[in-house]
Amino acid sequence: MRVVVAPDSFKGSLTARQAADAIAAGVRRAAPDAEVLAVPVADGGEGTATCLADAWGTSLVPVPSTDALGRPCEAAYARSPDGRTAAVELASASGLPAVADVPARAGDADTRGTGTVARAALDAGAEEVLLCVGGSATTDGGTGLLHALGARFLDADGRELPPGGAALAHLARVDDTGLHPRARAARWRIACDVTNPLLGPDGAAAVYGPQKGASPALVAELDAALACLADVLREQYGTDVAELPGAGAAGGTPASLVALLGARLEPGAPLVLGATGLPGHLAGADLVLTGEGSFDAQSLQGKLVSVLATTAHEAGAGPVVVLAGHVGLPAGALAGTPVRAALSIARGPAGLPDLSTDAAPLLADLAEHVVRLVTAGVTP
Amino acid sequence: MRVVVAPDSFKGSLTARQAADAIAAGVRRAAPDAEVLAVPVADGGEGTATCLADAWGTSLVPVPSTDALGRPCEAAYARSPDGRTAAVELASASGLPAVADVPARAGDADTRGTGTVARAALDAGAEEVLLCVGGSATTDGGTGLLHALGARFLDADGRELPPGGAALAHLARVDDTGLHPRARAARWRIACDVTNPLLGPDGAAAVYGPQKGASPALVAELDAALACLADVLREQYGTDVAELPGAGAAGGTPASLVALLGARLEPGAPLVLGATGLPGHLAGADLVLTGEGSFDAQSLQGKLVSVLATTAHEAGAGPVVVLAGHVGLPAGALAGTPVRAALSIARGPAGLPDLSTDAAPLLADLAEHVVRLVTAGVTP
Repeated sequence: MRVVVAPDSFKGSLTARQAADAIAAGVRRAAPDAEVLAVPVADGGEGTATCLADAWGTSLVPVPSTDALGRPCEAAYARSPDGRTAAVELASASGLPAVADVPARAGDADTRGTGTVARAALDAGAEEVLLCVGGSATTDGGTGLLHALGARFLDADGRELPPGGAALAHLARVDDTGLHPRARAARWRIACDVTNPLLGPDGAAAVYGPQKGASPALVAELDAALACLADVLREQYGTDVAELPGAGAAGGTPASLVALLGARLEPGAPLVLGATGLPGHLAGADLVLTGEGSFDAQSLQGKLVSVLATTAHEAGAGPVVVLAGHVGLPAGALAGTPVRAALSIARGPAGLPDLSTDAAPLLADLAEHVVRLVTAGVTP
Repeated sequence: MRVVVAPDSFKGSLTARQAADAIAAGVRRAAPDAEVLAVPVADGGEGTATCLADAWGTSLVPVPSTDALGRPCEAAYARSPDGRTAAVELASASGLPAVADVPARAGDADTRGTGTVARAALDAGAEEVLLCVGGSATTDGGTGLLHALGARFLDADGRELPPGGAALAHLARVDDTGLHPRARAARWRIACDVTNPLLGPDGAAAVYGPQKGASPALVAELDAALACLADVLREQYGTDVAELPGAGAAGGTPASLVALLGARLEPGAPLVLGATGLPGHLAGADLVLTGEGSFDAQSLQGKLVSVLATTAHEAGAGPVVVLAGHVGLPAGALAGTPVRAALSIARGPAGLPDLSTDAAPLLADLAEHVVRLVTAGVTP
């Protein structure tokens, strides 16, 4: 029997690797002869690079970089075994927590540090960059990232703009002649699950600016500055990022990357799953066990677990069973979905703290029960 | 697919019938074509007669009787469809709650009311009486019950003793010439899961007397009186009930029944299961779903669920799965037992009150998941 174990993290209690190990342990107890492949998965959000490094069996590659305010910091990216793919998290260098020690400067914060990380990955041979957005402190339309890769953002007098989104109000032209050749040649894929446009009331500044410390006045200023960026990108590259769903993610980071690098926005779950190589292993699987902290109706709407289940189903794998801390939907809701069953690790009355603390042994135990059940051999 | 659904009650939330109906509903949702046999079961304790009537598809037969202090009361027994078997609960007529309105009179309380119920059952044609002990207010060695069936308990002067255990200190002889012929002819089976002897520090008076309101002095008096009963029974019938494990149950009720009627003490679970006729249905079952409020290591020690599982296993039935409010043992503890898996109805963090309130829909949902899992067709 071949069992593929591929859980997401159980937020607040287990990393995806810890969850995978616990489930695999339970499977082996119930079926000592089973061939178990345990691959932690992620949805493109925070922790995705770590998860990918783990799935790839590689270590995170550290890169000396700068934070969103230009101060030195240590960042890292994940590297596939063949070195061709790099997974870069915007939050690693340009994240909000790293600049929480000083008063917010949402107008100045930029993504230059992430560009430094990406450059290191390209210099090390990466031909594909998976950029995971989320958790950034920036609203610079990705201009800092491009700057680190050699592009120059100029005002009407041909002077380079200072860092940050606010300065884009003075953007007149982009000089991409110095753009890193490997950056041009690489395939850029942005894991993005939001559909916010770059501008307006649902845009990067209006929706995400306040949580980065932008006042209403600064939100308006940044929105206008990003509009200026969109105008220049449309004129120079013929790309209308203003209308692109998802361009408003991560302070508009996709805007510059789409226009200058041909980056593609992709839903996070299938992108990450594909990167792990998991789909190739699902074909011959007799049983697929996945899981997450809370499995509910939303989970079935294109989230990681449902993408995995669909992928497994299409690959002709055996049943997919979800093991979760909390199951927020009835069995009937699974009809017509590729999820066979979804069970909670709870073994009776219990509070969230207890379930979190005991999550690993409870998860192993549930996996053991599930394997005992699915191998029971009852003919319907 | 044939599915046998046979849960115990979920104490504090569902009767065995409610649990059986909930599980059956879940099974039918997962497998609309399944043939589902839902039979509530019980362990010989309180509620057993009600459960048996339900399992038999009969109504409880009401009997005007008297309580443990001789006051009129309404009692009832269960009657098998063919009328040959009657299930009588000692608690129905001779129970403690019915006499809780007056100061305890543990020395006077007797089982006459239960005898009245049994007599009604015999007069209606019963050839077998299943007596469920537990919850009685009496310590009369079963003499009241026998008195109601026509036996006379006499002192040295040939006068009939007054009701209750204390009076047995003056017992000199039993006159059984007036014993109801059907009582003699019937097969008496006492569901008994305790091993307390009639007398001494582990005996009927010492262990159960205090909860019936007996003072230490009265406990000593009742113990001596029961010793007197044991002496007379040994002399007249050659039966040494003093040494019989379980004779101390229910105020020593088994003592007189064993000596005068040849009653047998039997573990409750197999006795009740046999009475339901369930064992005959287990042979062709593809799946057996049982359950109880709390499933733990004790459940595997000869309790109802484990007896059912063993019976199913020996009958060659498919896997037995336990659905419980609380599962207090790990999957590994099931190795070598006939229980395939045990899962809780909890779907995440939840308190006991919520689980109790929602027990029926949660149980149905769990049953649906379990059927989806066991029919998943994974070959180990």
